[in-house]
Amino acid sequence: MKIKDIGEQGLLKKIQSFCPHDIIGDDAAVLSPDSQKQLVVTTDVLVDGVHFSDVTTPPHSVGWRAIAANLSDLAAMGASPLAVTVGLALDGELSVDWVEQMYQGMSSILAEHNTAIVGGDICRSSVTTVSITALGQVSPKHIIRRSTAQPGELIVVTGDHGMSRGGLELLLNPSLGTNLPQQQRDIFLSAHQYPQPRLDLLRYLWEIMETTVITGMDSSDGLGDAVLQICASSGVGAQIQLSSLSSVSMISQWFSAEQALNWVLYGGEDFELVLCLREKRKNWL
Amino acid sequence: MKIKDIGEQGLLKKIQSFCPHDIIGDDAAVLSPDSQKQLVVTTDVLVDGVHFSDVTTPPHSVGWRAIAANLSDLAAMGASPLAVTVGLALDGELSVDWVEQMYQGMSSILAEHNTAIVGGDICRSSVTTVSITALGQVSPKHIIRRSTAQPGELIVVTGDHGMSRGGLELLLNPSLGTNLPQQQRDIFLSAHQYPQPRLDLLRYLWEIMETTVITGMDSSDGLGDAVLQICASSGVGAQIQLSSLSSVSMISQWFSAEQALNWVLYGGEDFELVLCLREKRKNWL
Repeated sequence: MKIKDIGEQGLLKKIQSFCPHDIIGDDAAVLSPDSQKQLVVTTDVLVDGVHFSDVTTPPHSVGWRAIAANLSDLAAMGASPLAVTVGLALDGELSVDWVEQMYQGMSSILAEHNTAIVGGDICRSSVTTVSITALGQVSPKHIIRRSTAQPGELIVVTGDHGMSRGGLELLLNPSLGTNLPQQQRDIFLSAHQYPQPRLDLLRYLWEIMETTVITGMDSSDGLGDAVLQICASSGVGAQIQLSSLSSVSMISQWFSAEQALNWVLYGGEDFELVLCLREKRKNWL
Repeated sequence: MKIKDIGEQGLLKKIQSFCPHDIIGDDAAVLSPDSQKQLVVTTDVLVDGVHFSDVTTPPHSVGWRAIAANLSDLAAMGASPLAVTVGLALDGELSVDWVEQMYQGMSSILAEHNTAIVGGDICRSSVTTVSITALGQVSPKHIIRRSTAQPGELIVVTGDHGMSRGGLELLLNPSLGTNLPQQQRDIFLSAHQYPQPRLDLLRYLWEIMETTVITGMDSSDGLGDAVLQICASSGVGAQIQLSSLSSVSMISQWFSAEQALNWVLYGGEDFELVLCLREKRKNWL
């Protein structure tokens, strides 16, 4: 069954089952943010053939990644999620099943973070485009910015970098990495198709911020880009010790040293956090 | 100069001049809504060839209409605007000038309502797509819903309906309406290219809502659709007295009686408000 067979109204009905019942049916959604907190807002647009494709990204993963990218931006600001809206431009030839699976992907990751789709828009287009806006909230003292880094601070990254790019490579070239154990292969694929925004770390970061400033951003455009952006915003320089990043040797082992360096620094879409911390602690996180 | 000539970074630099300086440079924007109010959020997606075209909509008007549609949704909820985000998927062959003019159109209407673009995303696509999310705020007692209409209420519309559809017709068929005086022609064209969201009426509506409930929505999908939606949400019926709508005779005069009926009820995109009021007053607004 294609979208054009059931039309916009038919599709809307199916999609509304993914939204909270009490939010549907007005010109806009009404939310009640915490009155003590500031509002955080971020938008990401994903285009078929540019950010995802049938080869690399099943529809469930398209939905997951679209939400993950936005929740990661909230995490990078120190904010917890409040709600998202979904703007869709869809090819009428697309199957209704594709759209429902994408919404299931969005719902899965949103459920993990107690967040809901509160609004959106659907229209037709020859190119499927997904535009997500995420709203979050944060106490003023817990906002993480890019511009507050100072010389002498330690750069700390959460999780591994380059893994999403490795997963993409495996999906684009199935003949590659045939020597990889299935478990290792799944780690790469999962990093690409089901990245985890680091909202799980917020309570630790907030605790640290009770006594000191944290500077940072997410690594959606790569670890190298994140360090450069923070340096540019803060007016500082940085030194990256690649040997301290475990994914460098992991990727070198299954691919090559050159790919390891390239993917870890410039691969992007790992959605980890790159943080600058004022003082060294024994166990940071 | 085309977008592909200056790339995403070059285009971002130009676009950032349309955003408040202090909001640029982090993963997300931080806002401080009124702590006594509820947050209202709405999203609209516009696609080249579906919602606008070079024939009917110069880029300045594309930007204006994209924002107007979203601000109208806020007005329809009784909410005043707080901020917007802009997600853009752009064809690399598009001229940089087109994009700048579109942003000028967005800025013009936003300036009239003391609102700013606080975030967004740009990416490439073969089909230009504009996705706007507008944030507003409203006191709980001033929220306008669709579901609270009761039998015996009066349906009141702001402004004229069918005019935007008339303007579209003149733009699509330049040979039409050659008997129209220029001033009359401009009223139709302006209704289509530069619709005004009815935020100007909010303070009057809020005043009325101090003593009684107002039900309503905007007429973005047509006056007929708005009345049907309110009836369905509220579980009531309605009677429309077409003779009381001045645009019916105005459109009949220059086009035909059949077009007048069709455009007034089903034309859409007039972005007026359709309201149900509990008691008759001498001068409503």
